[in-house]
Amino acid sequence: MDKLLAPTSIAMVGASNNTWSIGGMVTANLLRAFDGPVHPVHPRDTEIQGRKACPSIADLPEPVDLAVIAVPAGQVLGVVEQAAERGVGGAVILTSGFAEAGPEGKDLQQALADVSARTGIRLIGPNCIGYMNVAGGVMANFALLPNEPLPQPGPVALVSQSGGFGSYLTSKALLSGVRLGWFVTTGNEVDVNLAQTLRFLVERPEVGVLLTFSETLRDPETFIDAAVRAAELGKPMVMLKAGRTEAAAKAALSHTASVTGSAAVMDAVCEQYGVIVAQTMEEMLDLGLIFQDGRRPAGDRIAIMTTSGGAGVLLSDVAAQQGLTVPELPEDEQAALTELMPRPFYGSVLNPVDTTAQITGNPEAYGKVVNAVAGSPSVDMLTTVVWAHPGPAIDTVIDTYRSTTRPLAVLTNAPVVDLTEAGVPTYTDPARAVGSLAALARFTTRPIPARAPYRPDEERRERARALLTGGSPMLECDAKKLLALYGVPVTAEEFVHSPEDAARAAGSIGGPVALKAMSYQLPHKSDAGAVRLGVRDVPGEYAAMLAEVARKAPQARIEGVLVQQMVPARLELTCGMRRDPAFGPMVAAGLGGVLVEILAEAVLLRPPFDVRTARAALDGLAGGRLVSGGRGLSEEEAELVATVMTGLAELALDLPEVDEVDVNPLRVADGAVVAADGLVVISHG
Amino acid sequence: MDKLLAPTSIAMVGASNNTWSIGGMVTANLLRAFDGPVHPVHPRDTEIQGRKACPSIADLPEPVDLAVIAVPAGQVLGVVEQAAERGVGGAVILTSGFAEAGPEGKDLQQALADVSARTGIRLIGPNCIGYMNVAGGVMANFALLPNEPLPQPGPVALVSQSGGFGSYLTSKALLSGVRLGWFVTTGNEVDVNLAQTLRFLVERPEVGVLLTFSETLRDPETFIDAAVRAAELGKPMVMLKAGRTEAAAKAALSHTASVTGSAAVMDAVCEQYGVIVAQTMEEMLDLGLIFQDGRRPAGDRIAIMTTSGGAGVLLSDVAAQQGLTVPELPEDEQAALTELMPRPFYGSVLNPVDTTAQITGNPEAYGKVVNAVAGSPSVDMLTTVVWAHPGPAIDTVIDTYRSTTRPLAVLTNAPVVDLTEAGVPTYTDPARAVGSLAALARFTTRPIPARAPYRPDEERRERARALLTGGSPMLECDAKKLLALYGVPVTAEEFVHSPEDAARAAGSIGGPVALKAMSYQLPHKSDAGAVRLGVRDVPGEYAAMLAEVARKAPQARIEGVLVQQMVPARLELTCGMRRDPAFGPMVAAGLGGVLVEILAEAVLLRPPFDVRTARAALDGLAGGRLVSGGRGLSEEEAELVATVMTGLAELALDLPEVDEVDVNPLRVADGAVVAADGLVVISHG
Repeated sequence: MDKLLAPTSIAMVGASNNTWSIGGMVTANLLRAFDGPVHPVHPRDTEIQGRKACPSIADLPEPVDLAVIAVPAGQVLGVVEQAAERGVGGAVILTSGFAEAGPEGKDLQQALADVSARTGIRLIGPNCIGYMNVAGGVMANFALLPNEPLPQPGPVALVSQSGGFGSYLTSKALLSGVRLGWFVTTGNEVDVNLAQTLRFLVERPEVGVLLTFSETLRDPETFIDAAVRAAELGKPMVMLKAGRTEAAAKAALSHTASVTGSAAVMDAVCEQYGVIVAQTMEEMLDLGLIFQDGRRPAGDRIAIMTTSGGAGVLLSDVAAQQGLTVPELPEDEQAALTELMPRPFYGSVLNPVDTTAQITGNPEAYGKVVNAVAGSPSVDMLTTVVWAHPGPAIDTVIDTYRSTTRPLAVLTNAPVVDLTEAGVPTYTDPARAVGSLAALARFTTRPIPARAPYRPDEERRERARALLTGGSPMLECDAKKLLALYGVPVTAEEFVHSPEDAARAAGSIGGPVALKAMSYQLPHKSDAGAVRLGVRDVPGEYAAMLAEVARKAPQARIEGVLVQQMVPARLELTCGMRRDPAFGPMVAAGLGGVLVEILAEAVLLRPPFDVRTARAALDGLAGGRLVSGGRGLSEEEAELVATVMTGLAELALDLPEVDEVDVNPLRVADGAVVAADGLVVISHG
Repeated sequence: MDKLLAPTSIAMVGASNNTWSIGGMVTANLLRAFDGPVHPVHPRDTEIQGRKACPSIADLPEPVDLAVIAVPAGQVLGVVEQAAERGVGGAVILTSGFAEAGPEGKDLQQALADVSARTGIRLIGPNCIGYMNVAGGVMANFALLPNEPLPQPGPVALVSQSGGFGSYLTSKALLSGVRLGWFVTTGNEVDVNLAQTLRFLVERPEVGVLLTFSETLRDPETFIDAAVRAAELGKPMVMLKAGRTEAAAKAALSHTASVTGSAAVMDAVCEQYGVIVAQTMEEMLDLGLIFQDGRRPAGDRIAIMTTSGGAGVLLSDVAAQQGLTVPELPEDEQAALTELMPRPFYGSVLNPVDTTAQITGNPEAYGKVVNAVAGSPSVDMLTTVVWAHPGPAIDTVIDTYRSTTRPLAVLTNAPVVDLTEAGVPTYTDPARAVGSLAALARFTTRPIPARAPYRPDEERRERARALLTGGSPMLECDAKKLLALYGVPVTAEEFVHSPEDAARAAGSIGGPVALKAMSYQLPHKSDAGAVRLGVRDVPGEYAAMLAEVARKAPQARIEGVLVQQMVPARLELTCGMRRDPAFGPMVAAGLGGVLVEILAEAVLLRPPFDVRTARAALDGLAGGRLVSGGRGLSEEEAELVATVMTGLAELALDLPEVDEVDVNPLRVADGAVVAADGLVVISHG
């Protein structure tokens, strides 16, 4: 990857003197930025843009680290083979006409993949617009035109599959003041993918922030690895995901068919591993702006300074909605601020500090106030408002920004070049300014995602496997044995074959019981009358139930009857496991009962995870109201639910042949949780 | 109001030759824009900015429609009195130092209110920055400096309490391409308030869109009247509300203490009367942009055209999330589009139409494609992407915009003056571009809010009043009688005073019953053991219950025992009424049971409303999943819940002495709804 992305020598295959062609543009970009040797390759021209050109890559005077390829699709394979032969480390293939262009293109792309696998040459693209490594002087792209200024090195890395939109993002990022040091498009990802690129970039010392635009994620393990490394290194990673709704229409993770799809899984994985999910493109760039200067607030207290009460109220709203606190300043600070204000003073020094508009005529006073607020020991960060007229207010804000190490976000009515050039994070909407500061505060105080390596208990696994020998879905009685092996509390129950045994079992369980007819042919027991609740007359109901089942589902072979304890429920949850096509097993927990269809909300975690992680996720469910004291889960109950989740996680890791698990309902009352039903689907073969 | 806001003659009190003073700025603004006579008033100067000045308003050569006042706070009252005496129609008071400046200022403001009430002179302000009426040539403000260009007349009216933030909004709106024809700040609202201003503006023929920024809403009836008129006239009204979180912390509307606060009430009223609530400042201006050209889509089908697949996916996501459809184009249209594309073509003509980047070199082809897509009979609106480089693509988009009557939103990576000057709605984020089109489509298809005048049934009212003579909260048995009067189905029940009567009542009700001890001293019956459910041994439980209550709540005087039918429930709802300090009675309905605390969600409607309105609101609850076929409400049940809501609405209008009503639970099963409990709080005195 180093040769591919941080080369010391480059060949440009498809170089051109026509700087309006892609080959010519990229040649010009490479030449203007790179310190090391750049070798144009052209079959006929001997000089390109002032450099001596080679007729083919085989004729290069020296092996190069990187080949950039912009030749017609039909010639690409030959060039890559030559390059591999010549010892080139990696190639960026800009050419289109591969997997995106029908079956023939697909074959061509597969041939490229084969060459890469066979020879070890690393490939970016095809169908991409290349990459930019500013510090390394590598402008192997046509996202920027040769006549556009070269960006200054910056700490932000932007990775996008889409070339066109990536280029759009790049230009918008630079216009917004985001200081890009890297920009990589991965295109069709014949070899190097988005996740691998992030994994590479996260270790680079010059990279401080990772922004990524993803359509499909090909390599989830590497993505998670990159996310965990980013978290460990304190480098924020922000993801903008396209294809959410398409994905959401696909097989849902929960049987409610409304909670989760792949996009929900993606969001859940991001949440679990500390990746910030941006809802919009501008949000992603807004976060780049606030993260790039490396400032981190010591807490969540924000000072708001405005020249208008109205703006202050709006900014306070966003702060409170986003979880920041807007502390009233202590009296001594208020007094000191009041001293600095012009007279008569009709504003406020409480926080929001409203200087009123009259201060705009007095830059010196404005400077003193903004410095005092920025330096207040009672706050951790500052937002202030300036009009987009160049002048003393702008200069004062820049001075203040430079004189403090605290995060500062400026609200303006239009972009101000002076501010962005000075690196001051500048926003045109109150929600974006304060929202970005709030994201920064959340990032700073977030827990580092736990790596929770799982060491299976082989003996337990063998015992579990022994239970999987019947049909699928498993009989409820067997499913509950499996769940119990993984630490899920289940109802007291007995599997019987006669009314007499049922009565005896009911006697030893005590109280009214549930009777359930067990059959592999009855996945929906209730519909066939195969469930009786609150039974006291056990032999009578036993007979009645079997008679009803025989009538309603004559084809069902009854294996026996489960006599089960009735358990009370203050609250019913569901807990389950599904396998996502991209991310593999995912464990979900959420509210159950009738309302789950109406108010579906669930936590989703990817195994392995520990009880603490599950607890934290449950604590965040339903706006924190599920575990809340009131009538929600008690601490003790929440801990038990978390344990059920880790049990399902271990089950999923131990037994890849288990496709699905549903614990529904998981009944909660009086400090206990009990699985009252369990469904386990085993894959065929 | 006409003289105040559309004057034919103006006096400027506090005029000045110093155009850096507020008085001087406003004088210059008035003079440069107004066609009629403008009279500067100054105690000493005889000529101001080239016009003859009067020493006082009393010395005006003629009575004027409007006086603009920018003199120190202490002189304002005298000037307003003189103006009223001289027959001036209205005054705009720019001066600060009134209610916002402590008790003395409050008194001064009250004196102004008194003058206005006594003489009929209409007042805007104080503590505002005035207003702008572009078509009328009235620049009675200092939001724009005299050296800034005068806006061209446009259809958008912007109304803000806050002067400073209003000025910020104005300048940002103009920079964004929003064509403002009106801008009014109401400041301290001593007389004319935000709602009255909206009510005035909505009738103006030149106004097509109303944008408003509100901190506190003083005149809800007028606001609702303006909203209904706006809906009737097809003029969108967009509200940005500040002070949400502060407000949300105040007394909540529902006893769950988590559903609703004043901001939620405000949102609910806006929803009910067709006012669009903007979540952010930029969203409000984005909506101004898409609404101002008056184009309305015939349906919800959007065409998406991009030069990048990635952008297309992102735009499609937003479209689907926002309820637009992205239809696949029919084959003949696809074929026609393919013909227009450059070769080889690796893009897509399905919709999103992805031309790929190569079309950017071919403006003619680009123009043909964009025109074909804009003219497609299969879509109702179009979004397209252009880079922010002036050039043929921009010109082509402008031509296309002019040649179609369909809504068009353009996504660019930076603001483009050519586009905004041509009136093309232009956005810098995919979510904002498509989100604005989606809001436009929703507006176009929304129902016109029903005016539902309520004619009380006097006889029913008298019978209801007769029930209110006891204590508060009412006994459950009385509360249910009251509810029944207003059409709420209640449980079959009987109020008895002996175990024998209870047993007889239970016999006639049939099945197991509930017993509830009735006492004004037991607002929380369950805690005191005063509720028994599923009772078969009526006399036994009767005695046991009263014994337990006597032990647990010895102070409670028992008025009798309610013997109540047990009703089944597939679903439990709550339905209630509270009185909001700003908007008066509000009726809520939502999911009940334990989960209401965890997953609070409710509909809120302001009486009077009809069953159809309540039904529509219920249909929208929980993302449409409450009334959904599945296990949610059936059509029949939803209709009954809507009727319960209108019953509570009528009760609230009939009986102002009823402070609160809670029907909790409203049990739903098998096509019936029944109130199983009812709490009615009556105000004292």
